[in-house]
Amino acid sequence: MYRSHNCGELNAGHINKEVTLSGWVQKSRDKGFIVWVDIRDRYGITQLVFDEERTSKEMLERAQKLGREFVIQVKGKVIERASKNPNMPTGEIEILVSELTILNKALVPPFTIEDETDGGEDVRMKYRYLDIRRNPVKNNLIFRSKVSMEVRNFLSGNGFIEVETPYLIKSTPEGARDFVVPSRMNGGQFYALPQSPQTFKQLLMVGGMDKYFQIVKCFRDEDLRADRQPEFTQIDCEMAFVEQEDILNIFEDLTRHLLKNVNGVEVDKFPRMLYDDAMRLYGNDKPDIRFGMEFGELNDITQHKDFKVFNDAELVVGIAVPGGNAYTRKEIDKLIDWVKRPQVGALGMIYSRCNDDGSFKSSVDKFYDQDDLAKWAERTGAKSGDLVCVLSGSTNKVRAQLSALRMELATRLGLRDPKVFAPLWVIDFPLLELDEETGHYHAMHHPFTSPKPGQLELLDTDPGAVKANAYDLVLNGNEIGGGSIRIHDKETQATMFKHLGFTPEEAKEQFGFLMDAFQYGAPPHGGLAFGLDRLVSILGGQETIRDFIAFPKNNSGRDVMIDAPAQLGQEQLDELKLQLKTK
Amino acid sequence: MYRSHNCGELNAGHINKEVTLSGWVQKSRDKGFIVWVDIRDRYGITQLVFDEERTSKEMLERAQKLGREFVIQVKGKVIERASKNPNMPTGEIEILVSELTILNKALVPPFTIEDETDGGEDVRMKYRYLDIRRNPVKNNLIFRSKVSMEVRNFLSGNGFIEVETPYLIKSTPEGARDFVVPSRMNGGQFYALPQSPQTFKQLLMVGGMDKYFQIVKCFRDEDLRADRQPEFTQIDCEMAFVEQEDILNIFEDLTRHLLKNVNGVEVDKFPRMLYDDAMRLYGNDKPDIRFGMEFGELNDITQHKDFKVFNDAELVVGIAVPGGNAYTRKEIDKLIDWVKRPQVGALGMIYSRCNDDGSFKSSVDKFYDQDDLAKWAERTGAKSGDLVCVLSGSTNKVRAQLSALRMELATRLGLRDPKVFAPLWVIDFPLLELDEETGHYHAMHHPFTSPKPGQLELLDTDPGAVKANAYDLVLNGNEIGGGSIRIHDKETQATMFKHLGFTPEEAKEQFGFLMDAFQYGAPPHGGLAFGLDRLVSILGGQETIRDFIAFPKNNSGRDVMIDAPAQLGQEQLDELKLQLKTK
Repeated sequence: MYRSHNCGELNAGHINKEVTLSGWVQKSRDKGFIVWVDIRDRYGITQLVFDEERTSKEMLERAQKLGREFVIQVKGKVIERASKNPNMPTGEIEILVSELTILNKALVPPFTIEDETDGGEDVRMKYRYLDIRRNPVKNNLIFRSKVSMEVRNFLSGNGFIEVETPYLIKSTPEGARDFVVPSRMNGGQFYALPQSPQTFKQLLMVGGMDKYFQIVKCFRDEDLRADRQPEFTQIDCEMAFVEQEDILNIFEDLTRHLLKNVNGVEVDKFPRMLYDDAMRLYGNDKPDIRFGMEFGELNDITQHKDFKVFNDAELVVGIAVPGGNAYTRKEIDKLIDWVKRPQVGALGMIYSRCNDDGSFKSSVDKFYDQDDLAKWAERTGAKSGDLVCVLSGSTNKVRAQLSALRMELATRLGLRDPKVFAPLWVIDFPLLELDEETGHYHAMHHPFTSPKPGQLELLDTDPGAVKANAYDLVLNGNEIGGGSIRIHDKETQATMFKHLGFTPEEAKEQFGFLMDAFQYGAPPHGGLAFGLDRLVSILGGQETIRDFIAFPKNNSGRDVMIDAPAQLGQEQLDELKLQLKTK
Repeated sequence: MYRSHNCGELNAGHINKEVTLSGWVQKSRDKGFIVWVDIRDRYGITQLVFDEERTSKEMLERAQKLGREFVIQVKGKVIERASKNPNMPTGEIEILVSELTILNKALVPPFTIEDETDGGEDVRMKYRYLDIRRNPVKNNLIFRSKVSMEVRNFLSGNGFIEVETPYLIKSTPEGARDFVVPSRMNGGQFYALPQSPQTFKQLLMVGGMDKYFQIVKCFRDEDLRADRQPEFTQIDCEMAFVEQEDILNIFEDLTRHLLKNVNGVEVDKFPRMLYDDAMRLYGNDKPDIRFGMEFGELNDITQHKDFKVFNDAELVVGIAVPGGNAYTRKEIDKLIDWVKRPQVGALGMIYSRCNDDGSFKSSVDKFYDQDDLAKWAERTGAKSGDLVCVLSGSTNKVRAQLSALRMELATRLGLRDPKVFAPLWVIDFPLLELDEETGHYHAMHHPFTSPKPGQLELLDTDPGAVKANAYDLVLNGNEIGGGSIRIHDKETQATMFKHLGFTPEEAKEQFGFLMDAFQYGAPPHGGLAFGLDRLVSILGGQETIRDFIAFPKNNSGRDVMIDAPAQLGQEQLDELKLQLKTK
């Protein structure tokens, strides 16, 4: 038996008990005649003591030679500490060691195993197994496990069945790129790894499985933006015989369950916002509503003067920055530089200071008088002491730019408290999205999403106007889940594929099995998927999903610890009937 | 709202209630003036009634036209049935329908959606979504979900943390074949799909995670034997600071928890058997101990006569078939044919009848007298009325042959009751296994398994004799789990790789990260993995794992429903810098 207790549980109640502990040497203090060693495991830290009077000389000497991260086992008696540490659960006691065994030595770790480490991201990723010993990473993984269990408890308790769907499926070129897997037994053919179990969960609905969920890995071979992973985890859910309202209610309950059981936070009924309103008021389909700073559209009150920049703009839109009139001219210039960075892309920014005396001072006083500026303030909700920031340009671009500015300012103003949770449903998404590069429409959610009743006809005349039974769950400015009511009849699905540019042959080859299934008694159904990595990181009060993944990949899709991907031997390639293109 | 109740919950207590149900038409009986329709969903079947007197003519006619598997919604009143069906939970009532909506029509399904269907395996796999509507398949999937939840509840309750390990890892040619995944972003390089999360769970132990589990898909590109799947699910577990005894105890508790909570069966402490004893007594490392028929080794009591077949044999071994003396000569001849089938491969079988009068009659009476045969009976435990069956040959082969015969006879004799559960630990497996084709030793469990203390030296002199800290959990003649105490120091791991034929360079390239990790303070650790597919099927009283997988692949590794794997477009191949070998 390696231990009678763990390193986090002993306290004054255990005094005089003989115990056995195992763990890692966190640190030691050597006063020559007395040595204290902190022993650490997953559960905490306990102080060990060796001294001249009560410990054998030989053991004292061995204790003095213990290095950081050595793995040791000790036996000894729990005694009261002379100087107690009220900040540690085990701070009342220490262990007077009678037996010391070195279970394994350790090289000096390449970074300190402390909450605040001296290791940079790269070295921590290479030695991720050491990084995981650190409380912040360890606790994030334990937190993730707890969230997953709570999800399963809630869904199982509500009659959902977890069904495992296959990982080796078929590639469908539509949408993001698939990772593919050559089949040795079917030479020249390939499986694909699922981007989501979408079609399988719909087939489960056709199969009568009614309430399905799965916590499942999904795969997308995309060029990685910051904080995207080629493999990620979804809480994938689907229900039959439901309308959108049923789905919103049950997954709102799930989210509320998590906030309560994981974070101890009670949240009221989630507000709902139309997609169009989200875009108009926040420039964004995943608004952070922990704070206001709603957009005020100013076209009608700015385009009556000779200011050409505004007059030429499709949209003129502003926000009020609380207390922003305190900014110096230099600070405002910096803000203007910020919106002009290529990542944001604005051409400039107009502002209007709301002075305490009720007057205004703008960067365009040449064009606009006090009455005009008063309207800007009114429209953006600016009060005395605030600053109105105004951007202009084409609607989509300027919304994205002002949204970025809004989030940046909120961060600077401390309005994005990670302990505050503001969930929000965004509903009535467009069915299709115009790809401005190609001029083609593609499915905004996915090709299985149903249009709003009665809007199917619009597909021919005004495809961009068709709204879908599609919804996102937003938490603190992050999309944590999204879903839709699905198409469940073959004709609508075929129409949909046609509008997405599939020939009937392509549709049949790629999704024939699904359209066949719809002919054999498909029930109305819909669902939702949460991004678990994101959900966990938001609930955990952080925004970097990598910190909640045990062994993440870097931005080139590499696992630097195991050094993957790697080259294959020729024999393996031969078996797969593959060769590498050299050019 | 599509339904107020499901199709399995209404009973006499609901009489006079107005309800809404949705589901599939199971069947209908049309008497002209009255039509009964059974509506089915995941939860059960409810009888609907439409009749001339109480139903509109138009609706009665529409009811008459409902086809099998149409998806319908009905509103109506719960009424008492004239002729009750006590075999159905809803058999006391029926619904007098006031409103009928066809939600979706259905083609006639290619096989009947009944517990006993007329559909063969192939057609049911192609239309798996219809097969899942059948109770046996549906209930198996629900059963699987329940087992998984119980596993998670038990392990979480015992402090295990579920950690997701990566699916895109590195190929290691040792062992079974990997499925590989070409990396587009790292041209010419490949990921591999994990055969198990073995090295990652060991790294989690190095990382201090202490008690880990994961229910996880694993992948092996093997030529598929019957009832093997290229993707399968493991309950993967690992613990640090444990000895073999700790691991056996906790996973015995888990198994007992499942038997109790899933099957309602209480099981005492699991027996333990040495691997050597299992091979000697059952010819097999996963003996079914629901019944006896233990092997009796007969060398010393058969090789003193002139029967050359036995005298030349490395092993002469028999079993007693209870009541087998009742077999006719013809039946015994058939048994002999059975053991001579190529799948079993025996050259013949000697037998001795144990007559009721205490005499014996054998097929080798020319060589053996009554005293000899009495010893055979004693050694195999045969009683009057039994039949002793004896095989001979080289030890490994003859044990496998007699084991196959033992299982076949037990099945014929009804000794393998799927409702009886006989778990067993088989311990002290050999560390290495001789590959008789190549003459090389390879790891019996895997290269990370530790030899028994003090046996490392034997590796040089008698590698086959080295025993490992390795154990299997056997249930009813099936290996449901297996594991080992791992090596946790670099030197032993390097020695192990050397004996498995790795050069130091190969070991470093493939497993350098693990051996590096062992230098930074690796704790003693070990673990176990259950095969979930197998476990679920055994607990479910069946032996075909495919029946417990929602979307299984066939013996060519194909998903015949979605028709995967499939060819890729040239563009996809180009992006991956791959080309197919044509020869």
